[in-house]
Amino acid sequence: MPTAVAGPEIERLIQLLARLPGLGPRSARRAALHLIKKRELLMAPLTAALETAMEKIQVCKTCGNIDTQNPCTVCTDAKRDRSIIVTVADVADLWALERAQAVNGRYHVLGGTLSPLDGVGPQDLAIDSLVSRAHDAVVTEVILALNATVDGQTTAHYITELLHDANVKVTRLAHGVPVGGELDYLDEGTLSAAIKQRTAF
Amino acid sequence: MPTAVAGPEIERLIQLLARLPGLGPRSARRAALHLIKKRELLMAPLTAALETAMEKIQVCKTCGNIDTQNPCTVCTDAKRDRSIIVTVADVADLWALERAQAVNGRYHVLGGTLSPLDGVGPQDLAIDSLVSRAHDAVVTEVILALNATVDGQTTAHYITELLHDANVKVTRLAHGVPVGGELDYLDEGTLSAAIKQRTAF
Repeated sequence: MPTAVAGPEIERLIQLLARLPGLGPRSARRAALHLIKKRELLMAPLTAALETAMEKIQVCKTCGNIDTQNPCTVCTDAKRDRSIIVTVADVADLWALERAQAVNGRYHVLGGTLSPLDGVGPQDLAIDSLVSRAHDAVVTEVILALNATVDGQTTAHYITELLHDANVKVTRLAHGVPVGGELDYLDEGTLSAAIKQRTAF
Repeated sequence: MPTAVAGPEIERLIQLLARLPGLGPRSARRAALHLIKKRELLMAPLTAALETAMEKIQVCKTCGNIDTQNPCTVCTDAKRDRSIIVTVADVADLWALERAQAVNGRYHVLGGTLSPLDGVGPQDLAIDSLVSRAHDAVVTEVILALNATVDGQTTAHYITELLHDANVKVTRLAHGVPVGGELDYLDEGTLSAAIKQRTAF
């Protein structure tokens, strides 16, 4: 425990900053000092942005996205293809897909993946609401955009079972060589998948 | 420029977080998401801590330290040895010395080091105020705790000249092997200095 050098207020700020992912105790101290030095240019706007976020940000009741409106911008966007529901584990994955402009459907955020070891069961995830959304007549496809990990794939299999009697096509992301990737550095699983799912040139 | 996924308020928060040292655009996005998820546990207290900091934190008019009072806790601490002024380039250095409980004197923060290449001259640093503090009869020693870099040592030499007619001893930090350091990994300059300034065992 370092000595409080500059009063409890600054120590508290440092401790809170240290709880952000990517910042340790040392970099949190640097960040706090940076904020204090750039009082008007950075600390004031950041404080205001956090106040706004505290006040306005909410979770979309339909898809689980985070936004300042409910239902969220994506769910209310008339230009979206309402027949596709892209299922993701986390809001971060939704943001990643949106940044890539990979798909023009709507989303469904599960809030994690099934993980017996961590005690995450189906009741902890937004799976029931996904199944009920999938039964909507307008929906024809559920894309399971889940991580290619054991937990991700277990979750995908579990959901596929549940969607058996919904009238939807259930698809998952392709496995293969990442764009820009070098074969030399890829694991055997990825290479086998890339060969198996090869496409005509 | 990534597409705004979740409204301008969140994008603004991400952009401001990305300006903290140690956070890039990607980790800022993760930090923002983390804050939003831990709304009550982290975002609310961080917002409050920043509001308090905005309101209370000020620069000590005597030594340049950052604190919630002016003169700062260190300057007003009756247990400090008032005969010693430890001169540092930055508040971060002051904090580091305090954490190490290395010295029980008072401080003087220069606000940087002389750097002709970056256009930092004597008038940009708190050098005049240091000289005037050093002329106080109670002060007998000025420790120059500056970085062992070219800029740091140039600044140390410059200040030593200015303090020539003040009745104080001017000292600098010892050079040598860092505690826990392995000789094998040290540069020649450090090794030479460590040999030259060797002490009796």
